[in-house]
Amino acid sequence: MTYIASGQLKSVQLVKSCLDRIAETDGEIQAWAHIDADAALAQADECDRQRQKGMPTGLLHGIPVGLKDIIDTRDMPTERGTPIFAGRQPDADARVVELLREAGAVIMGKTVTTELAFVHANQTRNPHNTNHSPGGSSSGSAAAVAAAHVPLAIGTQTNGSVIRPASFCGIFGFKPTRGLIPRTGVLQTSVSLDQLGTFGRSLADAALLADVISAYDQRDPESFVHARPKMAEGAMTDAPVEPDLVWFDLPFNDRLSEAAHDGLADIMEILGARLKRMPAADTLSQLVAVQARIHEYEICQHLAETFDVHWDALSDTLKPVLTRGRRISRVEYEDALAVKASAEAFFEDFFTEFDAIVAPSAAGEAPIFGQGTGDPIFCTLWTLAGLPSVSLPLLVGETGLPIGVQVIGPTGKDDRLLRTAHWVQKHIAAQAA
Amino acid sequence: MTYIASGQLKSVQLVKSCLDRIAETDGEIQAWAHIDADAALAQADECDRQRQKGMPTGLLHGIPVGLKDIIDTRDMPTERGTPIFAGRQPDADARVVELLREAGAVIMGKTVTTELAFVHANQTRNPHNTNHSPGGSSSGSAAAVAAAHVPLAIGTQTNGSVIRPASFCGIFGFKPTRGLIPRTGVLQTSVSLDQLGTFGRSLADAALLADVISAYDQRDPESFVHARPKMAEGAMTDAPVEPDLVWFDLPFNDRLSEAAHDGLADIMEILGARLKRMPAADTLSQLVAVQARIHEYEICQHLAETFDVHWDALSDTLKPVLTRGRRISRVEYEDALAVKASAEAFFEDFFTEFDAIVAPSAAGEAPIFGQGTGDPIFCTLWTLAGLPSVSLPLLVGETGLPIGVQVIGPTGKDDRLLRTAHWVQKHIAAQAA
Repeated sequence: MTYIASGQLKSVQLVKSCLDRIAETDGEIQAWAHIDADAALAQADECDRQRQKGMPTGLLHGIPVGLKDIIDTRDMPTERGTPIFAGRQPDADARVVELLREAGAVIMGKTVTTELAFVHANQTRNPHNTNHSPGGSSSGSAAAVAAAHVPLAIGTQTNGSVIRPASFCGIFGFKPTRGLIPRTGVLQTSVSLDQLGTFGRSLADAALLADVISAYDQRDPESFVHARPKMAEGAMTDAPVEPDLVWFDLPFNDRLSEAAHDGLADIMEILGARLKRMPAADTLSQLVAVQARIHEYEICQHLAETFDVHWDALSDTLKPVLTRGRRISRVEYEDALAVKASAEAFFEDFFTEFDAIVAPSAAGEAPIFGQGTGDPIFCTLWTLAGLPSVSLPLLVGETGLPIGVQVIGPTGKDDRLLRTAHWVQKHIAAQAA
Repeated sequence: MTYIASGQLKSVQLVKSCLDRIAETDGEIQAWAHIDADAALAQADECDRQRQKGMPTGLLHGIPVGLKDIIDTRDMPTERGTPIFAGRQPDADARVVELLREAGAVIMGKTVTTELAFVHANQTRNPHNTNHSPGGSSSGSAAAVAAAHVPLAIGTQTNGSVIRPASFCGIFGFKPTRGLIPRTGVLQTSVSLDQLGTFGRSLADAALLADVISAYDQRDPESFVHARPKMAEGAMTDAPVEPDLVWFDLPFNDRLSEAAHDGLADIMEILGARLKRMPAADTLSQLVAVQARIHEYEICQHLAETFDVHWDALSDTLKPVLTRGRRISRVEYEDALAVKASAEAFFEDFFTEFDAIVAPSAAGEAPIFGQGTGDPIFCTLWTLAGLPSVSLPLLVGETGLPIGVQVIGPTGKDDRLLRTAHWVQKHIAAQAA
């Protein structure tokens, strides 16, 4: 990421080569909802001019970044994956976009999201095999990074929308601690659960992007005031001692495909004594329903007006979910929030004894295109509790498509999670070699 | 600044010792408009707890900072040095306060400002001699740092309101490039000229605080989008070659006191061949009137409603300035903006040949209390052009009060200015020894 800041590579060259790859392959992949080649090149040229003038360079100087199309940009439409918001042009940048611009990033364009970042898939295909889904809801961001359209992209996760598409697309996905990345200017689907995350082709890249877009933001009710961990540094640091890891035997692990099951079994064997296998308390499994209740209730609240006015423009996939959401009572919702709080307390205790949880990122390979975006259940618990997690592209499925392995850490210690994930990756590579 | 992050010193100990000094000496100095010892200690305790839990620490973890009382804080009043805004409690933090909190700073309290950060002095005394003024308009911030009430404080400068009080109080003042520090949530007195700055008891301290509060902010029309220079790093770096410095013979240099004149002559002699003495084009001197026109016109625009409603509550010092401001026509104002733009262009060219300008920070020692806050003219040109500048406490006046020396650099290269200032300081110390 420092080739441009040091002058070895011009941003214009990098952006041009990305645009060339997009021109070649995006007809098939359809990762992009909006892209303006001239605008991207103008930003890149400005970065090169700044560098030549000896001006300071930021952490992403001249590096193109893709943004999920629910993240507002003042100079590009933000259409949220639905005809309801076709042509919508925000007045202001989302806070993360402001941070990206300050860091010198080239805002390459907007990547395809599922409808309102929820269940209904849009047009994007999996770059590894275009007969398959890239996952969702951050479909285009994951696909664009996997297809080498951009080195970095931003997504969001309310359930499994960063980790799952990262797994399906064979790249690194990083969903930091809830509240670490500000959400101002990002479509709100669930104030309690919405979290931003990053995609990269290395752990350090995904972590570096998270460093850039991390900030306290008083306008975001989940944003926390404390200092952000140094994530890229964490991802590049060797653990001083071997970590203590845990695998939970969760009841929904029986949804794993054979290849995912066998691959994870191999990884558990390689991790050996470092990994403790634990039965999961029933309470953990119940959290899946709690996540759904909060998510469905809140999206119905936040977007009530939109749904009232534009109900007919919603997909038939989304409508029944919303119908269900509208039937959740305030009391049921508040009960769910209380269970969520107890889950957070559980994990806070839990991580005094362990460094990280190892878990599936998804049930297996990406589903066939047209058959949904895959099951998010392997992300639900950790997202609900606001824990940071990464997906490492370590496994291969039955048909040769990638499968990720998830590593989950304690809140606020994203740097240590990344250090642990770095250890896991190195350790497995060394054993496999 | 790393004693606390490393655990050698508890934030609570540091804050307590600061509160003790405030209790001892602020009866005389009156640097503080608002201070809440319990709230400061609670913040410090929270910092210590975070550190003990192994959470990440920011650049100012546990360090108390004073804020000029025109900078909004959601948990303390912000009264702007006038009875008009007595008891005013903002709903939100200024952007710089948000950045301070994220970095772990303890918001110690609000420091006394002159009336609406303009000409009329309030109660603060100079800690070196309480018969003297600390300068203005950032009177309390400079006095609090000089009196060791806090290691760091923030001020603002529309003409000379950081550099001049730093000079009078014998501390380091740093007014970065215009647009480097965001102004959202800070009283607007002149959208074209208002700039934030920092006070510290070392150059690196003042630079570190500037690092923390620097950010691109789309809500501030002067904020620039590019990466911020690494200022503390600049202030601690040895220049690779000796810098090329300039001294301008400006017509108002005849306002210097004898001690200031002689002290600066000594410094010019020490700098020798590194300092080129240049006559100042007439156009430079004319900029003083241009600054006044913009400042007076804009404050009358921005605060029109306040002045209309509360005219009788304004000081007799401010009223004639505003009366003059109200007579400036739109055309005169726009002409002044055009001259300002040409001055900026002049300096952009100028700094291709030179590293920095050396100049007085103020005319001499602090004036007697009750006789104003001193002449800002030695800061006017550089502030108008948005250039970064520092005041170094290098000289002593007739009665033993400190006098600063100003070093001014090119816009956007604040790190290099600080490196040059560091060289100047070291070089003069070495020669004087």
